[in-house]
Amino acid sequence: MSQQNTSNSLKLIRLGIEAYRENIIFIRSDCNICTSEGSTLPTRVRISTKNSSIVATLNPVHTNILKEGEASLSEIAFQRLEVAEGDTVSVSHLLPITSLSDVRSKIYGNKLSDNSIKRIISDVNEGLYSDIELSAFITACAGDHLDFDEITSLTKAMAAVGKQLYWDRKVILDKHCIGGLPGNRTTPIVVAIIAEAGYTIPKTSSRAITSPAGTADTMEVFTTVNLTYDDVKKVVNKEGGCLAWGAVAELSPTDDMLISVEKALDIDSEGQMIASVLSKKAAAGSTHILIDIPVGTTAKVRTEKDALKLKYYFKSVGQSMGLVVDSLITDGSQPIGRGIGPALEAMDIVAVFQNKKDAPQDLREKSLMIAGAMLDMVSNSEKGKGAELAKQILESGRAWNKFKNICIAQGGFKEPEYAKFKKEIFSTVSGTVVEIDNRRLAKIAKLAGAPNSKAAGIYFYAPIGTKVEQKQLLYTIYAENENELKYALEYIATTANPIVKIE
Amino acid sequence: MSQQNTSNSLKLIRLGIEAYRENIIFIRSDCNICTSEGSTLPTRVRISTKNSSIVATLNPVHTNILKEGEASLSEIAFQRLEVAEGDTVSVSHLLPITSLSDVRSKIYGNKLSDNSIKRIISDVNEGLYSDIELSAFITACAGDHLDFDEITSLTKAMAAVGKQLYWDRKVILDKHCIGGLPGNRTTPIVVAIIAEAGYTIPKTSSRAITSPAGTADTMEVFTTVNLTYDDVKKVVNKEGGCLAWGAVAELSPTDDMLISVEKALDIDSEGQMIASVLSKKAAAGSTHILIDIPVGTTAKVRTEKDALKLKYYFKSVGQSMGLVVDSLITDGSQPIGRGIGPALEAMDIVAVFQNKKDAPQDLREKSLMIAGAMLDMVSNSEKGKGAELAKQILESGRAWNKFKNICIAQGGFKEPEYAKFKKEIFSTVSGTVVEIDNRRLAKIAKLAGAPNSKAAGIYFYAPIGTKVEQKQLLYTIYAENENELKYALEYIATTANPIVKIE
Repeated sequence: MSQQNTSNSLKLIRLGIEAYRENIIFIRSDCNICTSEGSTLPTRVRISTKNSSIVATLNPVHTNILKEGEASLSEIAFQRLEVAEGDTVSVSHLLPITSLSDVRSKIYGNKLSDNSIKRIISDVNEGLYSDIELSAFITACAGDHLDFDEITSLTKAMAAVGKQLYWDRKVILDKHCIGGLPGNRTTPIVVAIIAEAGYTIPKTSSRAITSPAGTADTMEVFTTVNLTYDDVKKVVNKEGGCLAWGAVAELSPTDDMLISVEKALDIDSEGQMIASVLSKKAAAGSTHILIDIPVGTTAKVRTEKDALKLKYYFKSVGQSMGLVVDSLITDGSQPIGRGIGPALEAMDIVAVFQNKKDAPQDLREKSLMIAGAMLDMVSNSEKGKGAELAKQILESGRAWNKFKNICIAQGGFKEPEYAKFKKEIFSTVSGTVVEIDNRRLAKIAKLAGAPNSKAAGIYFYAPIGTKVEQKQLLYTIYAENENELKYALEYIATTANPIVKIE
Repeated sequence: MSQQNTSNSLKLIRLGIEAYRENIIFIRSDCNICTSEGSTLPTRVRISTKNSSIVATLNPVHTNILKEGEASLSEIAFQRLEVAEGDTVSVSHLLPITSLSDVRSKIYGNKLSDNSIKRIISDVNEGLYSDIELSAFITACAGDHLDFDEITSLTKAMAAVGKQLYWDRKVILDKHCIGGLPGNRTTPIVVAIIAEAGYTIPKTSSRAITSPAGTADTMEVFTTVNLTYDDVKKVVNKEGGCLAWGAVAELSPTDDMLISVEKALDIDSEGQMIASVLSKKAAAGSTHILIDIPVGTTAKVRTEKDALKLKYYFKSVGQSMGLVVDSLITDGSQPIGRGIGPALEAMDIVAVFQNKKDAPQDLREKSLMIAGAMLDMVSNSEKGKGAELAKQILESGRAWNKFKNICIAQGGFKEPEYAKFKKEIFSTVSGTVVEIDNRRLAKIAKLAGAPNSKAAGIYFYAPIGTKVEQKQLLYTIYAENENELKYALEYIATTANPIVKIE
């Protein structure tokens, strides 16, 4: 208590601590800010520079890794506050977050007004909510606790706080897949076909959160995805389509925060999912959107009934936002394509684009079905004509050329490569594959290093219905180093039920 | 990626980072544990020594504050794992927490079975739940979402995972106050009276979480509260009563975790509060419990109706646990006593014990009412006789002697002292005090340093109904150093509504 900083102004040191999405400020425990604010509860404070401010959780530090008058931030807080080591920040107390009373009201079962939802989303967007508070908001809204009005308000509020893209064309196409299915990398194929057909499709995709690869991770194998707002405009004006990473365009900044907590809880909040998807599409300036809803026991949507309800909600909430939204309910019983992991999925995509005989037919057919349905949405021709056109574009090689041109416009095109280390997993019995545990396949691919190690993951040879002999290859695990491979194999050793069920 | 630790065994360094109740493990970002587990989501891992293990959130570190093969823990994790700098720990992945599916089921509106609640509390007790997950559980149970059966199951489950105290006496008394009211430090007075009357009252109390002082903080001004299980036994066998800090006795370990998240959310979950209180009392071996329920607009319970419902629940859940529980509904419109903060509240207590003329009469009367009601609960005499006996014991000075003897048995008795720095706040108008903002008074006392700085806080001179002149003293802020005083005064300057409303 003897050494005290007599001001709330502190000089930043980089300790390099990554606390995921949480803003943390590390301050010496003998600093007056800690002794004043300190308690047994996480304290939230405002950290300011001349230009901007963020809210962070205060973590007192009891050793000399910080000297008197110094502070540090978690990595994300350095980014968000746009500061560097050596910069000075000031710390002040946080005024009460008034929208938390709206959250509490929702917890107590009341309907949220449009204004309440605006207030909540505005505060979430400013980073005022801690993870505990975000979790409470998400939990209170999950389990069908949002009605149609609330979902619509949430969608509008989330779109409003982000950047808005404007296009000088009337029809802007987009697609979205409700996740939960490994592989399933139809987007690059669909975008190339739609753009080659002459339509506009400025596609932004996310990176993986809990899965072994998001579309953005897979696209990063081919090209640069880290595009600015202006880059996106330039690429789309030139090629009709793009395949960029969505977070850069900052279309729905609150969405990332909500999704990361939802994923941690493994909660699929219907209302929030619809708001999440449609707020981004609205902000991206899309007019016609196709939703892919895979249904299966280990997919995100587990029954046809749930899928139909989602389809109805997407359509109606979309309508209230002035968007045309249609959904395809698809087979989510097993991975689509053979690769799981960025580079391995990229190889499947190349095989489909090149019309190779051994290309995964499920990926090819699903991509054509989606592209066809999207073309049907925007043309005056009879239903089904879209699928024919899509097939022509793919088979002629025009889709493959368009894809490479989009990559070149984004910064260059490169082919996917295999990882150095691999381990083949063989069947111990003979019979027919009757079930596949998608969630555990995804987990293995992640432990092997996907998506951070681009070439890591699984190549899968035994879709449901495959007749296998004893010692037949079921799947190959790829990793960029031996330890990651070992880590993934250890996981397989600890799991009791078979990942590929053969009877 | 080139420097890799080829084992999951790491040597601990103390960085001294306090992350409140969260177990964090800091590991170099180039270590294979980070590259395998790493994702954009907080990853939870198991950390083990030969003797025990805990679950922690993984925070990768990108600088050389950790050398290859080193790791660090948050301060609480060092304590919980019972390790020190230089010790070696091993890190492994965490198996899925199965009880989270029970939590999800509750989120979706289903009733929790007794077994579900047991599973959840057992996992919470093992530290498996992250703050995000605890927040989801609490939110799903808040807002009257727990019914009678669920509250009873929760109470039993919470009591079962903690230590149990056994007594060789039939009647064990206890009291509890539903918080939210500054001051209100009746417990030391009540315990001394009950013990002096010949009954057994092994009182354990909490430290402040969001308030400027808990009973344990105030008692720490007088004596040692950090008693072991054996100490508590020894003191109570000698003096009939004790005033110890509850966390040490580990009576309901899950309770602390749940309460800290509830406080962060500012949610009062009725069911969880009942379970929290009664689980601790059951574990402490109490048989007769009096609950003090203050009702007021800025107290925790705001209406008489809510208080009556709570009273009913306490009684019935208590009955199902074999406990006699009664409640007193009391005036919660303003602070009880004049002091807010450990030492200042201790001074009020001394004044009451010494029957001083200027002792706060509200504190004296409330203490006598509670002690009287408790004596009535356990004696065969007519109702009201308890209050008479309590008054005799207090006025004769026997309560004061008993209190000092309890302190001596706990490790020694010392008198409270004033803080070095103070600032007097005067009325700017004349009139009558009509309302007091208890929450903001508490906030000022905290910003001035309470409860960590024992002598910090507020001494309050203007209860509701007081006629004040312009420039009359309303309250004095005490602080142990100038900066904390300044910090508290800054807060007053930023608040718009008056803290003491005079009309």
